[in-house]
Amino acid sequence: MNAEIIAVGTELLLGDILNTNARFLARELSAIGINVFFQSVVGDNPERLHDTLKTALSRSEIVITTGGLGPTCDDLTKETGAEVLGLELVEDEETLQKIKTYFKELNRPLTDNNLKQALFPKGAYIFRNNNGTAPGFVCTNGEKRLIMLPGPPREMEPMYLEHVKPYLLKLTDKVIVSSQIRIFGMGESAVEDKLRDLMQGGNPSLAPYAKSGEVELRVTAKADNEEEAKGMIKPVIEQVKERIGKYIYGIDVSSLEEQAVKVLKEKGLKIAAAESCTGGYFGKRITNVSGSSDIFECGVICYSNRIKHEILGVCDETLNEYGAVSKQCAFELCQGIIKLSGADVGVAITGIAGPTGGTEEKPVGTVYVAVGDRHTVLVKRLELGSKMRDREYIRYLATSNALNMCLKFIENIK
Amino acid sequence: MNAEIIAVGTELLLGDILNTNARFLARELSAIGINVFFQSVVGDNPERLHDTLKTALSRSEIVITTGGLGPTCDDLTKETGAEVLGLELVEDEETLQKIKTYFKELNRPLTDNNLKQALFPKGAYIFRNNNGTAPGFVCTNGEKRLIMLPGPPREMEPMYLEHVKPYLLKLTDKVIVSSQIRIFGMGESAVEDKLRDLMQGGNPSLAPYAKSGEVELRVTAKADNEEEAKGMIKPVIEQVKERIGKYIYGIDVSSLEEQAVKVLKEKGLKIAAAESCTGGYFGKRITNVSGSSDIFECGVICYSNRIKHEILGVCDETLNEYGAVSKQCAFELCQGIIKLSGADVGVAITGIAGPTGGTEEKPVGTVYVAVGDRHTVLVKRLELGSKMRDREYIRYLATSNALNMCLKFIENIK
Repeated sequence: MNAEIIAVGTELLLGDILNTNARFLARELSAIGINVFFQSVVGDNPERLHDTLKTALSRSEIVITTGGLGPTCDDLTKETGAEVLGLELVEDEETLQKIKTYFKELNRPLTDNNLKQALFPKGAYIFRNNNGTAPGFVCTNGEKRLIMLPGPPREMEPMYLEHVKPYLLKLTDKVIVSSQIRIFGMGESAVEDKLRDLMQGGNPSLAPYAKSGEVELRVTAKADNEEEAKGMIKPVIEQVKERIGKYIYGIDVSSLEEQAVKVLKEKGLKIAAAESCTGGYFGKRITNVSGSSDIFECGVICYSNRIKHEILGVCDETLNEYGAVSKQCAFELCQGIIKLSGADVGVAITGIAGPTGGTEEKPVGTVYVAVGDRHTVLVKRLELGSKMRDREYIRYLATSNALNMCLKFIENIK
Repeated sequence: MNAEIIAVGTELLLGDILNTNARFLARELSAIGINVFFQSVVGDNPERLHDTLKTALSRSEIVITTGGLGPTCDDLTKETGAEVLGLELVEDEETLQKIKTYFKELNRPLTDNNLKQALFPKGAYIFRNNNGTAPGFVCTNGEKRLIMLPGPPREMEPMYLEHVKPYLLKLTDKVIVSSQIRIFGMGESAVEDKLRDLMQGGNPSLAPYAKSGEVELRVTAKADNEEEAKGMIKPVIEQVKERIGKYIYGIDVSSLEEQAVKVLKEKGLKIAAAESCTGGYFGKRITNVSGSSDIFECGVICYSNRIKHEILGVCDETLNEYGAVSKQCAFELCQGIIKLSGADVGVAITGIAGPTGGTEEKPVGTVYVAVGDRHTVLVKRLELGSKMRDREYIRYLATSNALNMCLKFIENIK
């Protein structure tokens, strides 16, 4: 079954608000196996809405609109919908009573335009609104279904979940299940190169999504029940693991930091960080995971050389001879933070985030990351600079690399 | 002039990501007087994209697409655009060289699909991409203009501002100038209540945008030249200042952290932070401003009580009697970080970010922020919890409040 979403509202066309309704509905519909091939936004303008509805009904089996069901004269979605379907508007007694009660409770005068909300295309099946005055409804016309929902998300979302979803589920009999494979250290086109043949399949499907230095691979299967769908997904994941396993840091986890917190908890280890160029970003990401207090002992943001020396014990000679952005400094910062915090695992990040401060030998984007414990410290030099990357992005990638190095290091701790 | 926005991408149809591009472009276009009557979303499917482009070009003078310009076989926007306009694709030498250099710099192999990015419809005017590999472009066909931009917001937004906006402005003969007034500590509807009459004006216009705990007021004027537009904006800013001046933290600055770094630099002061519940977020935000190394001395992420005591000198009695989330602890953390770092100004943040850990007396969202110097420390208790706010948002608001408190505190330092 194919559906199409139309959001109605001038405030969307002006960019005053984000179209979160379309996203909510798109997600919900794809989760129950209904394909969404088009979304559109149109203003509170009867002619343009009329054309948009007509086009939508000609190419999709289900058309869902949001917005324009309110009482003001701008709100013309319902009238236009009825017109496109060639239906007259009739009053719904139950809705009328509800509106009257609502205004009485609020002690507000009932104006004529409020009564408009009790009108529906003849034959409509009405979805009650438990969070506002405008009900939604569905009209059928042969094989086509036009569903109209109110615009405010706090009315639309519960109405969808309570009334529309059960209505739609009765029309289909398949379930959709997805798994996410998370990849770090390999670009999107390289991933595609290695997996091209697996990406040709329609069901289960395998699709890559690039996001901030990572690639997410989504495996999606459509089947009669959840178990069957999961059974279809499993072998695809196995094949991906076989080909690019060492770049996979997690399956069905949301981020590097979530995976790091999970693994540290499993092993009963505590971590601490000394951050120079990332200025707290590593700590921020780790502590964004709820429950990270069990594993994150302490962080020191050592922006100045004085702090590197006095608090974290980096030798003056190291700073003078090699500089703060050096393998040696990262190494000593890592040892220093382990000693200061008493944590099992230490991380140190020092580099040049830019846009200024780069030299020929150490251009913007040069970052040293050290990860270690009381016995071993590993240091890696990263070259994260490029014309395309700003300070924020270089810092983000530095922390992503540090998190990934931590994961690899912890794996080897018994 | 009328424009229409088409976002291309299956991830949008599936609801995986929000269509922030459409909103960004809608806002920008309406700010320069271009009407947007339609927005749509279509998947990476050549036929459906073909139909959508054709319809759009039949009814709008400018059609802007975002997405689908990448190197993978899914990315078909450019090919389809060329087809609809009846143009062949030709290689652009400059783009080709840039792609080769990019891959060389990154030390990654250049695959065939990357070379696809150097192809453009014949006669296209190319918009360089300073933040990624896929350039954008515009093709004209009589009175119609088809503009194609990359999908990732961090590539699309700067490309629009640097290249597309100047291109579009040349098509009209007015200039548009905007100023942003940044407000902290007052909600959007309260701001609107105080300024409703000023918001009625069409030119200059005054419009509020709520964003993450702040309100941005945008004053926009359309005039024959820049000077004239600026002259129209000035009195509006003065009136806003008169009415809600104490909530304004900056004009034409991008963020609280940028303003804080600016003011600290002007006064020649250094700052240091002790962070518990925000886990480095304050440091991350301050150090996101380039040049912050001049003013940010050091930060300590003191997640455990042991670190609060051993490194920052919080008394054991304080921790035992009042707990880590208390006015007393925030006070001592602030004193401790000033002592440890030798900075002029200290900040301390301790609280419950959630989702767990709340009590009746100190529910999730209870945060103590202390700001001070060697003589004075001020502590404020914040109640940031609500059903609508997650851990990330509570932590963000805690750092915003801390930055705002710093600004107020520094203002009073001679």
